[in-house]
Amino acid sequence: MIPTITAFERSPDRGQGLARDMRVRWAFEEVGQPYNVRLVSFAEMKQPAHRALQPFGQIPTYEEGDLALFETGSIVLHIAERHAGLLPDDPNGRARAITWMFAAASTVEPPILELQTLKFGEGDKPWFEARLPLVQGRIRAYLRDLAARLGDADWLDGAFSAGDLMMVHVLLRVRPSGILDEFATLSAYCDRARARPAYQRAFAAQLALATGA
Amino acid sequence: MIPTITAFERSPDRGQGLARDMRVRWAFEEVGQPYNVRLVSFAEMKQPAHRALQPFGQIPTYEEGDLALFETGSIVLHIAERHAGLLPDDPNGRARAITWMFAAASTVEPPILELQTLKFGEGDKPWFEARLPLVQGRIRAYLRDLAARLGDADWLDGAFSAGDLMMVHVLLRVRPSGILDEFATLSAYCDRARARPAYQRAFAAQLALATGA
Repeated sequence: MIPTITAFERSPDRGQGLARDMRVRWAFEEVGQPYNVRLVSFAEMKQPAHRALQPFGQIPTYEEGDLALFETGSIVLHIAERHAGLLPDDPNGRARAITWMFAAASTVEPPILELQTLKFGEGDKPWFEARLPLVQGRIRAYLRDLAARLGDADWLDGAFSAGDLMMVHVLLRVRPSGILDEFATLSAYCDRARARPAYQRAFAAQLALATGA
Repeated sequence: MIPTITAFERSPDRGQGLARDMRVRWAFEEVGQPYNVRLVSFAEMKQPAHRALQPFGQIPTYEEGDLALFETGSIVLHIAERHAGLLPDDPNGRARAITWMFAAASTVEPPILELQTLKFGEGDKPWFEARLPLVQGRIRAYLRDLAARLGDADWLDGAFSAGDLMMVHVLLRVRPSGILDEFATLSAYCDRARARPAYQRAFAAQLALATGA
């Protein structure tokens, strides 16, 4: 059975690959598994039918027969556990890769989302300019620590894993702000990931939808 | 081999159980496994020895022989995969419980942390009073969706799982603000969880350290 995921009918980033369905697409491509995509409008995302799959009214979701999942970390882990290519075979390496998946989604992404919230939710507030460097500073603190840990390694822990997939996509979301470029180590890390054929196939698939190509 | 976790030498909450080591203690208690605790000072947390375990200089960490993990979601999942009691046996139920773990740490906790950041990091700023209802409103939006999903069920998906453990602890972190009390469903959900003997043992253990009892 081919799983079905959901994605934005009209992605706010117009195909830059920053929407979260990109993580799931990329995971499918890394393990060489086909998937179907069902597009949902912003109105549909908030309706009961979609909330039954995603209680917070967001994308992506994952459906496979009776199973419905949400949260990209959970979906990517589900794919990685069922197909070779995204988790090491040895149990300790596998546990560490999962640690990086949580670090991406729970520790590094929240301050990056706070910057988006500031720009789109408080852009017209009198405190916008004064708060901007505070929020940017919080992101830089995490990126500094992450860059120090990565050092001159290609990936966070041995071979490329679901932990790198999640972390790279989180980092790409801060790239439009220019902050990622301040960290040459992390910028090169993301470039390595974006050069992977699986990333490129996933990127092309979401871009084709956004541009109608 | 008994695993060792780290916790604050002096917890900022003075034993209210809101520090993240509580999640790991609770998981160990649910599955009936012993653990050791090593206390670290705020200065030690930022030193290279601790950063080798936790690149962002936080607690808790998990050490077991050669294996070192961080991120409470990852540590709790590691414990839950190795001992019965925190994940359903059937694969679909297990995948859904992991979805709730990610939802707790990646979706519900970030706006709650934003409120803490506002209070402790921007409490002296001229915009504090004006931003407070905005940040509180973001938390309420997620809690409303979560309460709707929980409905009148005892737990998020069937029996108590690691997903509930993570979600309850995240929710307890917003309780001091009074916002949790606005959602009777979620408040009762947390009360059910806090009544569990495993929660109480974990709570008592961290309180004893905080009070020197």
